[in-house]
Amino acid sequence: MTVIKAALLGFGTVGEGVYTAIQTHQTHLRCILGAEVEIAAILIRDSEKERKIDADILVTTNFEDILNIPDLHVIFEAIVGEEPGYTYLQQAIDRGLHVITANKVMFAKYGEYLIHRSRQKGVKIGFEATTAGGVPIIRTIQQLLQVNQITKIQGILNGTSNFILTEMRKRKLSFDEALELAQQKGYAEADPTNDINGKDAFCKLMILSQLIFGEQPNWSEVGIDGITSITQEQIEHTESLGQRYKHIAQISKIGNSIHATVKPIVVNSDHSLYSIEGVENAISIEASLVGKITLQGPGAGKLPTASAMIEDFVDIFQKEPIHERKLEYQVQGL
Amino acid sequence: MTVIKAALLGFGTVGEGVYTAIQTHQTHLRCILGAEVEIAAILIRDSEKERKIDADILVTTNFEDILNIPDLHVIFEAIVGEEPGYTYLQQAIDRGLHVITANKVMFAKYGEYLIHRSRQKGVKIGFEATTAGGVPIIRTIQQLLQVNQITKIQGILNGTSNFILTEMRKRKLSFDEALELAQQKGYAEADPTNDINGKDAFCKLMILSQLIFGEQPNWSEVGIDGITSITQEQIEHTESLGQRYKHIAQISKIGNSIHATVKPIVVNSDHSLYSIEGVENAISIEASLVGKITLQGPGAGKLPTASAMIEDFVDIFQKEPIHERKLEYQVQGL
Repeated sequence: MTVIKAALLGFGTVGEGVYTAIQTHQTHLRCILGAEVEIAAILIRDSEKERKIDADILVTTNFEDILNIPDLHVIFEAIVGEEPGYTYLQQAIDRGLHVITANKVMFAKYGEYLIHRSRQKGVKIGFEATTAGGVPIIRTIQQLLQVNQITKIQGILNGTSNFILTEMRKRKLSFDEALELAQQKGYAEADPTNDINGKDAFCKLMILSQLIFGEQPNWSEVGIDGITSITQEQIEHTESLGQRYKHIAQISKIGNSIHATVKPIVVNSDHSLYSIEGVENAISIEASLVGKITLQGPGAGKLPTASAMIEDFVDIFQKEPIHERKLEYQVQGL
Repeated sequence: MTVIKAALLGFGTVGEGVYTAIQTHQTHLRCILGAEVEIAAILIRDSEKERKIDADILVTTNFEDILNIPDLHVIFEAIVGEEPGYTYLQQAIDRGLHVITANKVMFAKYGEYLIHRSRQKGVKIGFEATTAGGVPIIRTIQQLLQVNQITKIQGILNGTSNFILTEMRKRKLSFDEALELAQQKGYAEADPTNDINGKDAFCKLMILSQLIFGEQPNWSEVGIDGITSITQEQIEHTESLGQRYKHIAQISKIGNSIHATVKPIVVNSDHSLYSIEGVENAISIEASLVGKITLQGPGAGKLPTASAMIEDFVDIFQKEPIHERKLEYQVQGL
């Protein structure tokens, strides 16, 4: 049976999720693809750490080891931050590997270029996992709403912010108490700065902008507000009016001009994002034919994010012939 | 430029929606497909009725006229009821035409056979529009959740029922008053029997069952209840408890056994379908990797249903080469 060889970059929550998902869905993957999926190698940062990884998988701290694996087909990138993710993906694409990434900070900035480069090299790039975790928003837009012209998107794209706002309202916690609870439950990062200042949601919004409009607004012109200035009193007051604070990233195009904002908005009970609670993400899409549709689901987490990456993986290999990898080295003459 | 020739069967709300959608999105369709989309013919029932149709389109009451169009590629079927839709689609498939249908009653019963027959004939069958109108639930399951094993679905699949329940609660209307309002607004059919007795939602649930589990439960063993027995008093009582009546079609598989029900259910405010109001449809999917995701949107209507059909259309022609239609007639010798 044909074997599809994959490597994982990163073995944190998401990387381990992909590993688990492939192991637990091996039979089903074989059915869909008619091929065996083999995790050939895992790139880690700290070689001292104990991990539960099969003994026959190459575990390395050196990316060159990954690139040198014969007949590697695809790389799952689950590293945090712009670098080294960006450099690794460029190198992988140049070697003719398909890539699947969950790295929103990197992809918001370099996604357009990586897509361009992957087309030149004839490989595919999956980035469903960069935005809204398990919610299949990227491929819904790419594949299911092709004729529809999307005019506007509104989304709750950061689960931590939404969790904090929900807890402040429901349980009358202060901002600090709600944040601490989010950290205890493992929703917020150890450093939650980008969750609560709106930058995480902003990155996802820029990825959506590129996808929908083929371009991004000038970053410096986008108003980005987080949830840190919202007080318990404001939340109580809005609740007494039957309203709720939601942290909403929205983007629309009017004429040739893209308007994007990321900020807390007070919404009424008839708003499509009013009922999105806790760590959930949701995105409302307004489009020319369908009108408005809303997708809701887990915006983060081990298996939901792995779900997005594995579904990208299957999409790539259903459409692409599984060929021997063409190594781009030169045979030197004597 | 290549031309894709299409015919419409039926020119009611949905048929006219497809016609409008193709006309208004012609440039965009050309971009996506690299081909011109031509509506070559429209099958109607009543030749006396006035319609706004371009003069160069064949308008006929005879399906044979449609089948005899040279180089026809695809049929959009938007007829109500099992027949003549089923017979027409069989004939179209046998002639090597792709088909796209919005006919849920027919497809719930004959969908499996039509899919089988279309595979034999090497043509595609799109049925996104049969279930939940503009909400892209069929292709989300088919294409975006392939690795995920779906274990359960709960849906509000009939907009009229949901509208009536919403109006009974919000505006304290009686069942009859709410139904009349639904008819005035054009949400309910002239004969709303199958909307309010649960059979419409049942058909859609059976289509989902076939898609997810590859089979349907024995129809006679599925409990089907509509909303006709729900009183204003019951609705007031549940509301006083912070709960709501929702008409929910649900299906799950435990071991080898499929469990399906269609009935009003009292849900709490943390239920994923609690906030679905008015004519909206919504479907919650529980799956092995992603957990739970919910899709919400317009469950019916001219353009939303046309949206589903046009997106199916593009999906078919992006994947299939546009070839000369092979007419299956025999050249007889002398």
